[in-house]
Amino acid sequence: MRDIERWDIFELSLDGPQDGNPFVDVRFGARFSHGHRVVEVDGFYDGANTNRSSGVYRVRFMPDTPGPWSYVTTSNRAELDGVAGQFTCTDPGPGNHGPVRVSNTTHFAYADSSPYFPIGTTCYVWNHQGDALEEQTLETLRTAPFNKMRMCVFPKHYTFNQNEPVYHAFERTESGEWDYARFNPAFFQHLEQRIGGLRNLGIEADLILFHPYDRWGYAAMDAETDDRYLRYLVARLAAYRNVWWSMANEYDLMEAKTMADWDRLFRIVQESDPHQHLRSIHNCYAFYDHAKPWVTHCSIQHHDLGKVTEWRKLYGKPVVVDECGYEGNIEFNWGNLTPQELVNRFWRGAAQGGYVGHGETYLHPQDVLWWSKGGVLHGQSAARIAFLRRILEEGPAQGIAPATEHWNVTCAGVLGEYYLHYFGNSQSARRFIDLPEDARFTIEVIDAWEMTITQLDGTYSGRCEIPLPGKPYIALRIKKVV
Amino acid sequence: MRDIERWDIFELSLDGPQDGNPFVDVRFGARFSHGHRVVEVDGFYDGANTNRSSGVYRVRFMPDTPGPWSYVTTSNRAELDGVAGQFTCTDPGPGNHGPVRVSNTTHFAYADSSPYFPIGTTCYVWNHQGDALEEQTLETLRTAPFNKMRMCVFPKHYTFNQNEPVYHAFERTESGEWDYARFNPAFFQHLEQRIGGLRNLGIEADLILFHPYDRWGYAAMDAETDDRYLRYLVARLAAYRNVWWSMANEYDLMEAKTMADWDRLFRIVQESDPHQHLRSIHNCYAFYDHAKPWVTHCSIQHHDLGKVTEWRKLYGKPVVVDECGYEGNIEFNWGNLTPQELVNRFWRGAAQGGYVGHGETYLHPQDVLWWSKGGVLHGQSAARIAFLRRILEEGPAQGIAPATEHWNVTCAGVLGEYYLHYFGNSQSARRFIDLPEDARFTIEVIDAWEMTITQLDGTYSGRCEIPLPGKPYIALRIKKVV
Repeated sequence: MRDIERWDIFELSLDGPQDGNPFVDVRFGARFSHGHRVVEVDGFYDGANTNRSSGVYRVRFMPDTPGPWSYVTTSNRAELDGVAGQFTCTDPGPGNHGPVRVSNTTHFAYADSSPYFPIGTTCYVWNHQGDALEEQTLETLRTAPFNKMRMCVFPKHYTFNQNEPVYHAFERTESGEWDYARFNPAFFQHLEQRIGGLRNLGIEADLILFHPYDRWGYAAMDAETDDRYLRYLVARLAAYRNVWWSMANEYDLMEAKTMADWDRLFRIVQESDPHQHLRSIHNCYAFYDHAKPWVTHCSIQHHDLGKVTEWRKLYGKPVVVDECGYEGNIEFNWGNLTPQELVNRFWRGAAQGGYVGHGETYLHPQDVLWWSKGGVLHGQSAARIAFLRRILEEGPAQGIAPATEHWNVTCAGVLGEYYLHYFGNSQSARRFIDLPEDARFTIEVIDAWEMTITQLDGTYSGRCEIPLPGKPYIALRIKKVV
Repeated sequence: MRDIERWDIFELSLDGPQDGNPFVDVRFGARFSHGHRVVEVDGFYDGANTNRSSGVYRVRFMPDTPGPWSYVTTSNRAELDGVAGQFTCTDPGPGNHGPVRVSNTTHFAYADSSPYFPIGTTCYVWNHQGDALEEQTLETLRTAPFNKMRMCVFPKHYTFNQNEPVYHAFERTESGEWDYARFNPAFFQHLEQRIGGLRNLGIEADLILFHPYDRWGYAAMDAETDDRYLRYLVARLAAYRNVWWSMANEYDLMEAKTMADWDRLFRIVQESDPHQHLRSIHNCYAFYDHAKPWVTHCSIQHHDLGKVTEWRKLYGKPVVVDECGYEGNIEFNWGNLTPQELVNRFWRGAAQGGYVGHGETYLHPQDVLWWSKGGVLHGQSAARIAFLRRILEEGPAQGIAPATEHWNVTCAGVLGEYYLHYFGNSQSARRFIDLPEDARFTIEVIDAWEMTITQLDGTYSGRCEIPLPGKPYIALRIKKVV
């Protein structure tokens, strides 16, 4: 009997018909069973065999419980129906913590309960740049601090993004139009390869399902096509443990879709995904209502990190400011932050119990900007973001929450136990803080830019005057003496 | 016949009664006439003569029209009534441009039509620190870039402000309480000396009439006392051409006063001042309605300079952000800006046709912080503010207005003639701007922090790509070639 490690991919491939349009004519799926529990999973058509005598049908499943599993296929075609088998779900291997879930209301954790603090970056269409550049991007990510990647399914048309993608998602008709009823399996196979590459680096793929920057037609497909596309994509990808569903980049710029469309598309993903990966939607100007039940966490574009506390209260979900501006030097205000300012925004968000995302937009002679195409990093923020990631990972596993009993200061923590103060771009030479009277605390002065941690002598309690270096980007880490 | 230069002080002193309470029992004033024009002016009691045999009564007048003037006093006491005389108003001397007025709706100019771009600083109670420090402050101002000083009539009680003032505004009763019906002339004589010192340096005195930081009683006087104080102060000071009336610092923190009180106090100043000096009121949190007719310009406390354009539109008056935070290193967020950030806020306001104010709050062993007590400047912003003042003074005399036809950029100017773009703390290495097609323009790249101006080769028209240094605090000055 086959062994499949927990949260890895079990895949069953069967030969089946390739006449007509298998994408729409053939229904195929399987029921996976563990004890009395049954999980229904959609399969998908993956194109004709190389000899074109038959088609390949696959169904994928991510077992979440160790032990024996069995399955039986279901189809409207006899040759694909009733195929049964078993496998054993074994313990996960090194680095496999399972999918990320919401944990402690406004934070995240892996399915195995180990903490996950999202430190995301954005390379919107790194997966549409050809193998050489795509592999360079993976190589860069190997030593970068990021554990989440925002990336699009579809190619991008925009400033700095004029190149034609290698793959398209649909076949063409004889007249050269898209045949929206026939997917191009190679497009999706390539996407899977890149998502798997991220998984192997421990990086979540925050997969953007729709976006407005388009010259090919992906942004204005009809509802039937959108729905079929989503079901097909979920059937292919839901077994990848590192997939997150981001319904859109800048949903509010997609003129062809209404708010009712977005609600419907969310529900299709929710009902199709047997593994219930995280779901979000990203705005340009107006927020989607993140309080809606199918939204697992807030994915926000906003430059003002001062609002993180408000958003946490308003939505009662994790707040991920996926786009707060990028480090770079292009002509647009969304891409001309100094590295200091991007690091400042990361810390401002973190010191309110939120999470902030990275991107880089330095002008490049071949228009290879990290934010869209990947490649290599040119900036100075990534090293500081790695330092912040370390600070977060050394902190409370359950995450920290705003602790605003100290006026005038951005502070998050676990009351009575741990506080992370952050003083932003101010240059105070001292601060007064009020610690609980009934315990002693150690205080470390952190320089978020210089990446230094200096412990102050002694222990502290009650009202304390803290000398500071009198320069920007200073934080305090305060821990109860146990 | 005496000569008085235009916008200087004509003063008539008369001996009169000093029995009873001359501050309330004696009415005294004069009618000043030029041709058929008559201006009624209140006089004031300035205390007993040194031999205490009589009291000194004065009336002051700032003639605004050259030529012969005559006057006749009015009083309810015969010895002060009907005293007549003449003087000649002559041309102003060097440096005397008259009082500052609103000009071109949202800007200012001197009465002689020369432009006035307010570059203010704040030393709230520099005039209550004793002569040695006060004279040091004047010496500092001699070479500083400031042409406006925010300062309080009354002393201040606050963090860093625990010292007792040299003078108090009222006499004490025998039991040691304030006698609010008897002013202390020495208090006001000293204030006049300091306002005159500012005038001699070309600095407007933006005089704060009430403020909340008090341990002596000035912040909670009854309405009768407030009104008498204002009339007395206006009678004494209105002839000083460099006086502006700021009704309050942080009016909304003065719990003893209602909005109706503020309206009444404004109207008293308006109706008492024969010379109609500028009038404003400064907030902590909530704005007073600057649209009210007695408000000549907006005096604003706010950290977000991005709102200047909105305030200009909302109120249709000059916008002076008198307090946007200070350069310094104290523990409070209103006083821990880096010099870079304060300079950045000055430019952001200026590049929207607004005006921003300076202050410094560096910790000092004797608590001599410029923001409150004056002394010497310790920071790095003042030199850059001098540079900005030069840029403004080299620009259009009528002032500049938001010119937001270029998206993504803070830009003010005179359409078709002059543009000042400012790119804030961003680090773009290029910008695209759209200039009118029907003219040619020169472009200078300004580094607001390094204080350099570099003219780009050639002339420009239409859509232009402008290379920039890729660092923060860069501006463009664009001038039509004539």
